[in-house]
Amino acid sequence: MRALQRRLAAFAAARDWQPYHTPKNLATALSVEASELVEIFQWLTPEESARVMEDEKSAARVEDEVADVLAYLLQFCEVLGIDALAALAAKIDRNEVRFPAAKR
Amino acid sequence: MRALQRRLAAFAAARDWQPYHTPKNLATALSVEASELVEIFQWLTPEESARVMEDEKSAARVEDEVADVLAYLLQFCEVLGIDALAALAAKIDRNEVRFPAAKR
Amino acid sequence: MRALQRRLAAFAAARDWQPYHTPKNLATALSVEASELVEIFQWLTPEESARVMEDEKSAARVEDEVADVLAYLLQFCEVLGIDALAALAAKIDRNEVRFPAAKR
Amino acid sequence: MRALQRRLAAFAAARDWQPYHTPKNLATALSVEASELVEIFQWLTPEESARVMEDEKSAARVEDEVADVLAYLLQFCEVLGIDALAALAAKIDRNEVRFPAAKR
Repeated sequence: MRALQRRLAAFAAARDWQPYHTPKNLATALSVEASELVEIFQWLTPEESARVMEDEKSAARVEDEVADVLAYLLQFCEVLGIDALAALAAKIDRNEVRFPAAKR
Repeated sequence: MRALQRRLAAFAAARDWQPYHTPKNLATALSVEASELVEIFQWLTPEESARVMEDEKSAARVEDEVADVLAYLLQFCEVLGIDALAALAAKIDRNEVRFPAAKR
Repeated sequence: MRALQRRLAAFAAARDWQPYHTPKNLATALSVEASELVEIFQWLTPEESARVMEDEKSAARVEDEVADVLAYLLQFCEVLGIDALAALAAKIDRNEVRFPAAKR
Repeated sequence: MRALQRRLAAFAAARDWQPYHTPKNLATALSVEASELVEIFQWLTPEESARVMEDEKSAARVEDEVADVLAYLLQFCEVLGIDALAALAAKIDRNEVRFPAAKR
């Protein structure tokens, strides 16, 4: 993941895209890509949504949007110096306290 | 990242949340969290947005939303068997052809 | 609708909010509010989503988010001089050609 | 506005689209269209965003997305029996109390 984050930073730098890559713009781009992922599912029933990878074309579209979401998330974290994995690990720790699992 | 993905899957399973975790719902939740990240920036100028981590409270809020976005992205990939890192690597490969960097 | 649009413009002017109300920020705020509306439905089944107005509290929440979405849509149209109703009428005209109804 | 709402309802009925038009799906479609509106602005500066209607092509794109957002908002309100104008008027009343304008 850190290697991909560095590749994305080099990619943007080689194209002089940094002035566009404000945290505000990258967060916005992330949400736009997340909506493009949602768009694939918007008229599907829950059951149809579970079979979306069976069709080659829609599978490729889903993977493409996942890549875009992750790309903007990593670029957002890069410009603000955020460690996304550490942030998530800390959040899971907090949620284990906040939503205790039922005893079995 | 894969360890976090497994932790999230175990977390959801221990709380019987799987019936809610259809690909459609997880993609939707991802986009809702991405919008909560955007909300932090919506009235900021580009310059203010670059200083968002200087304030302890807004920094914590940003990290919290980043964690939520990554959490739903990983859970979405888990239920559909998608390797997000491989999808992103393939996408960067394609983009290097699609957007050639200017010669220097 | 035009009366509400004027009320919203006066409301923003009285609070000196115009510098924040760039088309970019208003479009972003609109999408953030649309996501808050989606959030109400994100874990519901299609059937549960159809009954959302039966509970007084969730009905009030839905109406509140509808108001927010419409407010930002009208303010966006105000700053750019767009007539939303005319735009929609033109779009329906185009869609009637694009998606012909099946003969019965 | 109510005439457009009726036209949209007739349009959907003539194409047998009602089973897809659950409140959940319509709210989701609304947020997807709002993001398509945001996409037009995502890399623009605040100043560039204020001039978006000067270019004929981007003006047409903006009006098209405004029409889509309004179309899904009206269809959402139709299926749930919500009066969007009344909801907004009530919200402005509440906000006038919540955010008093500075005395001049």
